[in-house]
Amino acid sequence: MSKVKKIGLLTGGGDCPGLNAVIRAVVKSAIKNFQMEVVGVLDGYEGLVFPGKTMMLGYEEVRGILPKGGTILGSSNRANPFAMQIERQGKTVSEDRSAEAVKRMKELGIEALIIVGGDGTLKIAKELKDKYGVKVVGVPKTIDNDLSATEVTFGFETAVNTATEAVDKLHSTAESHHRVMLVEVMGRDAGWIALHCGMAGGADAILIPEIPYDIEKLGKKIERREKYGSKFSIVVVAEGAKPVGGKESVIDHPDQPWQLPRLGGAAQRVADQISRLTKKECRVTVLGHIQRGGTPSPFDRNLGTRFGVAAVNLAGEGGFGRMVCLRGRGIESVTLEEAVGRQKLVDPKGEMVMAARAIGIDFCSAPDA
Amino acid sequence: MSKVKKIGLLTGGGDCPGLNAVIRAVVKSAIKNFQMEVVGVLDGYEGLVFPGKTMMLGYEEVRGILPKGGTILGSSNRANPFAMQIERQGKTVSEDRSAEAVKRMKELGIEALIIVGGDGTLKIAKELKDKYGVKVVGVPKTIDNDLSATEVTFGFETAVNTATEAVDKLHSTAESHHRVMLVEVMGRDAGWIALHCGMAGGADAILIPEIPYDIEKLGKKIERREKYGSKFSIVVVAEGAKPVGGKESVIDHPDQPWQLPRLGGAAQRVADQISRLTKKECRVTVLGHIQRGGTPSPFDRNLGTRFGVAAVNLAGEGGFGRMVCLRGRGIESVTLEEAVGRQKLVDPKGEMVMAARAIGIDFCSAPDA
Amino acid sequence: MSKVKKIGLLTGGGDCPGLNAVIRAVVKSAIKNFQMEVVGVLDGYEGLVFPGKTMMLGYEEVRGILPKGGTILGSSNRANPFAMQIERQGKTVSEDRSAEAVKRMKELGIEALIIVGGDGTLKIAKELKDKYGVKVVGVPKTIDNDLSATEVTFGFETAVNTATEAVDKLHSTAESHHRVMLVEVMGRDAGWIALHCGMAGGADAILIPEIPYDIEKLGKKIERREKYGSKFSIVVVAEGAKPVGGKESVIDHPDQPWQLPRLGGAAQRVADQISRLTKKECRVTVLGHIQRGGTPSPFDRNLGTRFGVAAVNLAGEGGFGRMVCLRGRGIESVTLEEAVGRQKLVDPKGEMVMAARAIGIDFCSAPDA
Amino acid sequence: MSKVKKIGLLTGGGDCPGLNAVIRAVVKSAIKNFQMEVVGVLDGYEGLVFPGKTMMLGYEEVRGILPKGGTILGSSNRANPFAMQIERQGKTVSEDRSAEAVKRMKELGIEALIIVGGDGTLKIAKELKDKYGVKVVGVPKTIDNDLSATEVTFGFETAVNTATEAVDKLHSTAESHHRVMLVEVMGRDAGWIALHCGMAGGADAILIPEIPYDIEKLGKKIERREKYGSKFSIVVVAEGAKPVGGKESVIDHPDQPWQLPRLGGAAQRVADQISRLTKKECRVTVLGHIQRGGTPSPFDRNLGTRFGVAAVNLAGEGGFGRMVCLRGRGIESVTLEEAVGRQKLVDPKGEMVMAARAIGIDFCSAPDA
Repeated sequence: MSKVKKIGLLTGGGDCPGLNAVIRAVVKSAIKNFQMEVVGVLDGYEGLVFPGKTMMLGYEEVRGILPKGGTILGSSNRANPFAMQIERQGKTVSEDRSAEAVKRMKELGIEALIIVGGDGTLKIAKELKDKYGVKVVGVPKTIDNDLSATEVTFGFETAVNTATEAVDKLHSTAESHHRVMLVEVMGRDAGWIALHCGMAGGADAILIPEIPYDIEKLGKKIERREKYGSKFSIVVVAEGAKPVGGKESVIDHPDQPWQLPRLGGAAQRVADQISRLTKKECRVTVLGHIQRGGTPSPFDRNLGTRFGVAAVNLAGEGGFGRMVCLRGRGIESVTLEEAVGRQKLVDPKGEMVMAARAIGIDFCSAPDA
Repeated sequence: MSKVKKIGLLTGGGDCPGLNAVIRAVVKSAIKNFQMEVVGVLDGYEGLVFPGKTMMLGYEEVRGILPKGGTILGSSNRANPFAMQIERQGKTVSEDRSAEAVKRMKELGIEALIIVGGDGTLKIAKELKDKYGVKVVGVPKTIDNDLSATEVTFGFETAVNTATEAVDKLHSTAESHHRVMLVEVMGRDAGWIALHCGMAGGADAILIPEIPYDIEKLGKKIERREKYGSKFSIVVVAEGAKPVGGKESVIDHPDQPWQLPRLGGAAQRVADQISRLTKKECRVTVLGHIQRGGTPSPFDRNLGTRFGVAAVNLAGEGGFGRMVCLRGRGIESVTLEEAVGRQKLVDPKGEMVMAARAIGIDFCSAPDA
Repeated sequence: MSKVKKIGLLTGGGDCPGLNAVIRAVVKSAIKNFQMEVVGVLDGYEGLVFPGKTMMLGYEEVRGILPKGGTILGSSNRANPFAMQIERQGKTVSEDRSAEAVKRMKELGIEALIIVGGDGTLKIAKELKDKYGVKVVGVPKTIDNDLSATEVTFGFETAVNTATEAVDKLHSTAESHHRVMLVEVMGRDAGWIALHCGMAGGADAILIPEIPYDIEKLGKKIERREKYGSKFSIVVVAEGAKPVGGKESVIDHPDQPWQLPRLGGAAQRVADQISRLTKKECRVTVLGHIQRGGTPSPFDRNLGTRFGVAAVNLAGEGGFGRMVCLRGRGIESVTLEEAVGRQKLVDPKGEMVMAARAIGIDFCSAPDA
Repeated sequence: MSKVKKIGLLTGGGDCPGLNAVIRAVVKSAIKNFQMEVVGVLDGYEGLVFPGKTMMLGYEEVRGILPKGGTILGSSNRANPFAMQIERQGKTVSEDRSAEAVKRMKELGIEALIIVGGDGTLKIAKELKDKYGVKVVGVPKTIDNDLSATEVTFGFETAVNTATEAVDKLHSTAESHHRVMLVEVMGRDAGWIALHCGMAGGADAILIPEIPYDIEKLGKKIERREKYGSKFSIVVVAEGAKPVGGKESVIDHPDQPWQLPRLGGAAQRVADQISRLTKKECRVTVLGHIQRGGTPSPFDRNLGTRFGVAAVNLAGEGGFGRMVCLRGRGIESVTLEEAVGRQKLVDPKGEMVMAARAIGIDFCSAPDA
């Protein structure tokens, strides 16, 4: 039925629990339903540009990977065939190696690519399609849940679970010692993880990028709780949270080019200010990459599996240039054009935020008095 | 703003992780947003019929309950004010005590009821509305996820998580000892839990009520796996699974009227037949009520919270006779008429089942060869 | 330093979380500290008797296995080279194949064997040593914790954790529905798992093989709790629990010789009697093999690692005929003679049981009124 | 039998999973076995010095607390009746309020005190005994496991479990992205948590206070792994880890007297140096207080329970001036003199460290080449 006999599979960007479920489902359903061969491309787009970075994927290679975090194919945060960072005589230069990538695909007999990645990775997929006519099918991946074209993606729930477990654990110490506990979670632009884990963990305040915070309000919230008998407070801080009129703190590494600039210190900054304002002991936990790890939740495993099967179905039926997505509880697809460049942010007036406010969670926004 | 100043809150039917999240959200948002008082009705409809079974619910009563399973209000599987089982002179008789229940509500000053329950509980709510004009708002609760009016309800995911964890654990023993492992999960009429935990746990076969199984096929599946080097198999069996042309096994208690008739032994029955057919050692695990317990997953906590807030909003805005529900990712509501009596079953030709088949899971149906 | 250049490694009996930690530690430390080669023997003693059932174990083979349950070498509950069950013309006969096993060891160049197993497996090890002079080092493995020569072994804690988690989960349903919840855990002869998970899970009664139970007492305990306001009870039942003057129920399979006789139904039997005595609804959960599965707890991983390193040290230093063990917090060793045939049972007058009684847990023994 | 009819119970110092198990066991066994009354003293020694900070503890007060982290009595890290920090006219002064504390005990009818705490808390207990003849029984509490008088205390295992889970989660990201992952765990003076979670989590290097590290060695370890194909490394860093010839980094708060000076930044400091040395991306996770939280492991619950029962037994039998402890698998007791002031550190030549080295874990010590 399918004319495509050999597909490539590539995972790009930050890792995400559920990637292996996608890989396993692509391999199993491609073989079972379409008799396709599947070539695994290693370390994201690096595997297209550099030789020797592919492997054949059969039943044996995907055995036992379903409950494992990470991606057996490896990934890369920065590899872009249109602007590859190459070291030349001790300096890092950017080179367009896209033609080479397409040539390699042909040599390997790869007729179509299933590309699993976030906005950046899928933009490159679209560019490969637009410039070279490469047949691509996209699978959305974003731990932050900030792609507007899909209701939710795998990995997000697992991250929320890990963060909520941390908030749960902080409760007992906070209560026993009358402290302010701050926990910093992922979310540079979108506060979804903070919102979900804060609500689920019973936080008293949640600071997210979409709602700039007024530090005085947070101080007053904590003092008001104290006055009414709750001598502790739990504050969830998205890494991209920023004060009203201010901006998020970026830690840059001008002397260490191998380090990406990154956000950092949002929770510590809030803690320093709050301990001055309220004279209460504050303690900070920075969850960092443990939010990306661990065995995927059953929901994330199943969503990854369904995405993988759906992507192969698209490839088998010639539906290229599209990305699979979740709408309601069903799997659908959109064009790559619709898929990229549209970030889904928390709506400060939306139902989730209003529900959080209704149960007393404070976002500490300026007009929120 | 609201004319309703005092609402009652009642949880009925089997317990479900997330009930306490609903209770907490109802209490907090009723007080904060509508200055209502909330009366907790104890042990389901029993609390309306018998005196002394209510308690006032304030911030203090709902402190710390968010991560807890069960319901602080207690529940009852059988209490129905229209057909109350009462012991009279050593015999159990059925009495209509609905008028008394409505009278008690008035005495307590309860102007409207928020009723959290499954199909049975909500049918009674509708009857109270229809016969006595009681103002009711429904919140759906079904661990089996078989209410058609809402995409999903709280508790289901936690049950799937518990069941998947069990399947994960059986893998190592199955592999080390070359055994057939069967795990029986909840699901009398609907196979949702079996389907979700079987896919997520990497089961080899899933038997659900919606797809009657052919035991010979299951035997052949296991032998085919053995032939190709996989000397173990994992089979997930919904408690209501039944053979082609047969029926599920009900364990009745004619001599013990205090025991409800219940399903039982589906997995053991399959195991006995399979060990005869394949001569392989089979081991059975029956998860039972641990699927209803434990701390709710963050998703279930948040869904419970959102349902609770939405139910109070309906009550505050006069939207009686309705049940809150989840559509897509948003909270909406339907009439109680639309809500009850429509069971949502697994579609044997639906996307989930087809995805499961695509990755090699066998449902062992007759025309499935 | 060591004269032994090649060792065999074998895991026998039921599987146990932590076996892979032993395997990994044996391989890594044998190579690093003693430059030994390690031969993995597959499926317990089967791998010695039948050809083609061994594999070389190097760093690559043990990568990533530390957090995994089960044993990568496979195991066998029944294989005994001195009495091998062989199928001959449709009948199962017992044959002494020990000479063949020893011959195979020599052919493979295996100079010494590290044997990981319980009492049965280690008795065979001792027999190989006594009859053929095979150089053996034992590593204790018993999920039931009933070997007297070691304070504790890996796997036991993980099983207790799994069982306790189940008891924790039953609490919410029991409380919400006023039920008696019974959970059956492993322990044919020794009640250690039941004792530990019952204490940790806040059970109201614990029935173990070492303390025959009086069913009337259990009924009275439950009714006494009801009278004082606790309308639910949690009872942990070891699978080998038996009534005063009675015996445990064994489920035999005379017509299915491939099935081992096994205990079964202890909790169900108690539930049936208790529901008759108290007229309360009882619910049974049988944990079964999930107690043997799952990722080993950190304690079990570390104990397995230390045992593996210590076993290699013994082999490297010529300490054959001994089994490693835990004394206090330190690793020591005993002779195989001391190691086998001595079961460690729960002392009905010991400190653990007395502590459990002090906090109100009932063992329902006859003189315990 | 006992002459003591009323005992006080106090928890001091940092919180620890298992404290509530101690409290529950003290209350239950004091009432059941000795008919004593139990007075809970709130917020550590503060509850002795200030009025109104006690509560009667009965069965009802300890219901349901067994699986909860923290302490229902509250604690205080700094309260010391012999040197109470009191605010006087905006300044913090130290006052001896011990006589007042003893007087308050008498007024409340408290005849003996059970004091649960670490070295600091128990030293104060000894001082109360020595100066005022107060009858005290100690229960050891240290999440760091650094009291020499007991083999292990409750809470330590739970902290190790939490930290190991984090290390497990970092593996998938580290592998997928070829990174160096550093995780900072508790341990100012003693590296027990780092040692146990590093071994259990399969870390490549562990830096602990007892073995000053050579940063060059760590760099070489990482590069050696890279050379042999492992492009990622996991490093566990105790917060008190310090370089050879250097010292741990203390973050002081001279301008914020309400903040305790604390260690900080050990992992970040190592990460900065390693990213310069190896040019590899490093990522830091600081677990902080989540290590003190969460539901106690079954082992910790049971150890807490046994300690609580044993402490009441001592009080009931007149064994004052002693602390309960674990020796082997049994509960014993030592004098307070033996109990305090003796820290148990990791032995760099001990069996645990040698086992860790045998499986390839590097401690990066100077003579460790």
